[in-house]
Amino acid sequence: MRLTELGEFGLINLINSIINKAKDSRQDSWKRLLVGIGDDAAAWQSDNVVQLATTDSLVQDIHFDLSSVTWEELGWKALAVNISDIAAMGGIPQYALVSLAAPGELKVEDISKLFNGITQLSAEFGIAIAGGNLTSAPNLVITITVLGYSKSKAILKRSTATPGDQIAVTGTLGLSAAGLKMLKENIYLDVETSNTLRRAHLQPIPKVREGQILVEQGVRTAIDISDGLVADLDHICEASKVSARIKIEQVPVHPLVKANFPNYLKLALYGGEDYELLFTATEAVIELVKLNLNCPVTVIGDIVEETVPNRVILLDSRDNSIPYEKGGWEHFRDESPNIEIA
Amino acid sequence: MRLTELGEFGLINLINSIINKAKDSRQDSWKRLLVGIGDDAAAWQSDNVVQLATTDSLVQDIHFDLSSVTWEELGWKALAVNISDIAAMGGIPQYALVSLAAPGELKVEDISKLFNGITQLSAEFGIAIAGGNLTSAPNLVITITVLGYSKSKAILKRSTATPGDQIAVTGTLGLSAAGLKMLKENIYLDVETSNTLRRAHLQPIPKVREGQILVEQGVRTAIDISDGLVADLDHICEASKVSARIKIEQVPVHPLVKANFPNYLKLALYGGEDYELLFTATEAVIELVKLNLNCPVTVIGDIVEETVPNRVILLDSRDNSIPYEKGGWEHFRDESPNIEIA
Repeated sequence: MRLTELGEFGLINLINSIINKAKDSRQDSWKRLLVGIGDDAAAWQSDNVVQLATTDSLVQDIHFDLSSVTWEELGWKALAVNISDIAAMGGIPQYALVSLAAPGELKVEDISKLFNGITQLSAEFGIAIAGGNLTSAPNLVITITVLGYSKSKAILKRSTATPGDQIAVTGTLGLSAAGLKMLKENIYLDVETSNTLRRAHLQPIPKVREGQILVEQGVRTAIDISDGLVADLDHICEASKVSARIKIEQVPVHPLVKANFPNYLKLALYGGEDYELLFTATEAVIELVKLNLNCPVTVIGDIVEETVPNRVILLDSRDNSIPYEKGGWEHFRDESPNIEIA
Repeated sequence: MRLTELGEFGLINLINSIINKAKDSRQDSWKRLLVGIGDDAAAWQSDNVVQLATTDSLVQDIHFDLSSVTWEELGWKALAVNISDIAAMGGIPQYALVSLAAPGELKVEDISKLFNGITQLSAEFGIAIAGGNLTSAPNLVITITVLGYSKSKAILKRSTATPGDQIAVTGTLGLSAAGLKMLKENIYLDVETSNTLRRAHLQPIPKVREGQILVEQGVRTAIDISDGLVADLDHICEASKVSARIKIEQVPVHPLVKANFPNYLKLALYGGEDYELLFTATEAVIELVKLNLNCPVTVIGDIVEETVPNRVILLDSRDNSIPYEKGGWEHFRDESPNIEIA
């Protein structure tokens, strides 16, 4: 069987089963592990704080096209996607390790710009670049590991959603996918709109403070929206063994997406890379979150007992279920960029 | 300027300067950072223990050739090189994050074997595979991050060598480079020798316990031999602003290398990937190390005040300096495998 046939998540399951076999509960490291494979970041109990670690790669021509992204933007984004994973745990990012596999023909100035983009963002969050690795390779792969911590054992996991929970998102959706579509298809928009879309796609701001407020207010279930709203909600459902209903009319599509893209709902549902936080909690907790967060918080549906075949159910304004194909970003199975959904 | 012109270490200096500019000593993470870029692993002060983190990549056709390595061996080695970096800090490895950038055409069975190789070694050291990342890519890149800790602030650094120190190595050298040469040139040797060489190159055993004993006995300066004895000693000299003299006749070349390879000394001096520990300390401390380590410990030279042009000086049996070209493994500048020295 080839990877393409198995798909990314099949591969994750496979690797999980191999690692579970190797798991040794007598070992201190396994004993201290609070969250291993299958969530946004790994977490383990240090003596006084919970340490967090996450890693993510951007691959040339898979995740980015050097003809439409600046090197600074690329550095920013490669770090941002990792910080977002720490944010989605309710953690505080502290350190980053940057690994570059790069062709020797690359310009040194460009690598400088890449690191300038990384340090622009790391400075925003007080993150120390603590190390990394450099190697030559036929094409560019940027792998960043971010280490962080949580002040308490209360962290945001994927596996704790409960029937009866409301589902909510921070901010608005669709802007990043619209930005990618604009860049790929050379869509002309006014300068201000164009800049907003570009920035949303290439220089997202991870929701670190927001993640901490979620934890403080009692939320325990969250994920960051990287693969797409439906796909990421499906990750929560799978880990929690529940299903989810989304009222699509309640999905907070960004007004610029609504105004400029006829397929705006698909961009918001499947586009991904918004790096907003998607979370579930009781109605009372979500009310507290709304009071304490400085950004929009929108309830878009609720968690129900597990259903088949789809764990995520889309409802129209009359509460009728809408059929849909699984979208979102999955490596190996579908190498097309996550915008390939229109 | 192209990367090929600058070379890997020039690139490290460049990135260092960018990161130093971004350094913010008011930030807690920077304040807690004990060792950042430029050593084997990053280290920071947690509340009760020093946390360690390191990352390293293996790239297809740069570091390995799928026609001459099994997938299990590849997984083992990708993890081993990282554990070795923690060992070279005197630390205890705890967690690994495994990132795979892989072509969709790869066989799933092969990826299983790769992870089997990883978990074979992780189990030896009680390491938990705590997470990672998977992405499609045109060619295979395996990036592993290992997190660990040290029980005390006393760790093994590169920057603490002092004139008057003796230079010593654990074990014997040259076996890994001889193994690579054997594999590349299809050299025929008897089965037992061939297996020993292959294992040395593809399934090295990191010197974790040895690193801890070095720390316990008072050693403060060490590196693992990955780039080659001369290149790695040069890293110590650069970081410590000293020079080093090696008496080449004292270099402990493995007997199988001596017996089968006419250029055995070059293999031992420049070959690299032995993953033995190279360290410096006073004569008294090295005597203690010899008493406490279960492997050979050989004094091969001493640390002196900084000299030019070469920081590492090779001496023959009459203490005459031997001219040599810089060898060892450097990415970007010389993409040939580290054996290309004969």
